[in-house]
Amino acid sequence: MSLLTVGSVAFDALETPFGKTDKIIGGAATYITLAASYFTKENNLVAVVGGDFPDEMISLLQDHGVNTEGLEIVKEGKTFFWSGKYHEDMNTRDTLVTELNVMEHFDPIIPESFQGTTFLMLGNTVPATQKLIIERMTSRPKLIMLDTMNLWMNIAMDDLKAVLKMVDLITINDEEARQLSGEYSLRKAAKKIMEMGPKTLIIKKGEHGALLFGKNSFFAAPAFPLEDVYDPTGAGDTFAGGFFGFIARQDGDTSDSSLRRAVVYGSVMASFTVEKFSLDRLKTLTQEHIDARVRMLRELAQFEAG
Amino acid sequence: MSLLTVGSVAFDALETPFGKTDKIIGGAATYITLAASYFTKENNLVAVVGGDFPDEMISLLQDHGVNTEGLEIVKEGKTFFWSGKYHEDMNTRDTLVTELNVMEHFDPIIPESFQGTTFLMLGNTVPATQKLIIERMTSRPKLIMLDTMNLWMNIAMDDLKAVLKMVDLITINDEEARQLSGEYSLRKAAKKIMEMGPKTLIIKKGEHGALLFGKNSFFAAPAFPLEDVYDPTGAGDTFAGGFFGFIARQDGDTSDSSLRRAVVYGSVMASFTVEKFSLDRLKTLTQEHIDARVRMLRELAQFEAG
Repeated sequence: MSLLTVGSVAFDALETPFGKTDKIIGGAATYITLAASYFTKENNLVAVVGGDFPDEMISLLQDHGVNTEGLEIVKEGKTFFWSGKYHEDMNTRDTLVTELNVMEHFDPIIPESFQGTTFLMLGNTVPATQKLIIERMTSRPKLIMLDTMNLWMNIAMDDLKAVLKMVDLITINDEEARQLSGEYSLRKAAKKIMEMGPKTLIIKKGEHGALLFGKNSFFAAPAFPLEDVYDPTGAGDTFAGGFFGFIARQDGDTSDSSLRRAVVYGSVMASFTVEKFSLDRLKTLTQEHIDARVRMLRELAQFEAG
Repeated sequence: MSLLTVGSVAFDALETPFGKTDKIIGGAATYITLAASYFTKENNLVAVVGGDFPDEMISLLQDHGVNTEGLEIVKEGKTFFWSGKYHEDMNTRDTLVTELNVMEHFDPIIPESFQGTTFLMLGNTVPATQKLIIERMTSRPKLIMLDTMNLWMNIAMDDLKAVLKMVDLITINDEEARQLSGEYSLRKAAKKIMEMGPKTLIIKKGEHGALLFGKNSFFAAPAFPLEDVYDPTGAGDTFAGGFFGFIARQDGDTSDSSLRRAVVYGSVMASFTVEKFSLDRLKTLTQEHIDARVRMLRELAQFEAG
């Protein structure tokens, strides 16, 4: 039961109402694998970084059991860099800088030892690359999950639709769900997106929680209500890592009950990420921290009918 | 166990992406009393309308058991009129016209038979009027609930703060909670607002549900997920009527469990109002319709921990 994650490992520089950072560690696959590490043992990473990426960050992932054999290091290259500024509401942001650097020619090589993976997580990146990764798997994983974003809907919609046909689960935020489907109502949007391929769809709504749509599922989870959100960067990736890591721990059980709990675990993992910059909170968790917050979220959402 | 509602009874004219109306029936107290009528038998109304207000609408309220003895009819006057236009997201709107008409000199007279009420609901109106109503009660009701809006925070904050000290429960939307408290975080906002007087606070978040804060309560309810929201006008008032009507039916039980269920009933009642214009859906409900939707909402929000 192994989980393979392919996606970006990056530097971020952020401005939020709470402060400003220099280059700190970011990237979809970084958050995904670290979050998933609390659920799965066989946790494999395929990504690319430049020679400027710090060894201690690779060690950090390894210390959490992430197999970095598939992390290509382009010695003479520079790591993907993104810089952004959050507005006061923390739900919207402006991109200040995007330097693709080594990501521009990322040609994901799947190590032989990663073939035969049970679960494949495609972090947000170029849809054509996501498709290529699936095609490079010698056997079809039991479950493939995909994350994407509005940028690809603007510039690579056909590629995105092609890869959507090949995946089982997708995570997306509410605005993206509306853009992808052309429907304002999220229930209608979900129906249309599920007709595009994925049997299961999770719509992330930030501080408003998440919605799960599946063949037999319709579930609304609140977000874990923090006093303050410090930095939302990586929340969606952490959600995906917690969600899919939980599904992997359940041997790929996609029953309604399992999917609901996966959404809750994803939400809880994301609630840790946003409490500090970068991986600062996510890297220090224990199973007790996670389970306690899941119980609190349950207490928050529970009511009797009648 | 009687519930007294004081507030506006009005005409609205609306534009939504789904259509445009002529003058239709609106007003906070209209929605509140009609929603509460599904929960409470002694349902009393104090409001003012002009001679232009249709008799059949008064009959409609009476048919639902609303006692309209306190509905003053100013024969030569015109009924309060509000016109608004909703944006595509249905969460924001522009006011096109506000004609106070008979509301401008509204001097709420509490009929003798309405004195000694157990529950007092102050629909959204001028805070000084809300305060006057409390002062005109010969005995203090067991529970007083207040609804308000951003307009009063802009032009009558001192009056609003004065009346807040006198009430037990308040409903408000998320933006209003932020404005009233000066805090962006809703958890921090709730703390500050509860220090202003009300022991219980419900923050309404439209399509994102509602949050309940109380001495022993912290609860997040999803909104009932409709395929389409047809017209959001009156949703907040309907919520308040369903919520407080349920509390009245529970003999004023404000335990955590009772408050949670009241929020759910409020949400469900609001979900009916937004399905059609005016009172068109709200007036046709049965207890079975309501209970079925409560069960669906529970199913939507339920999950196992661990």
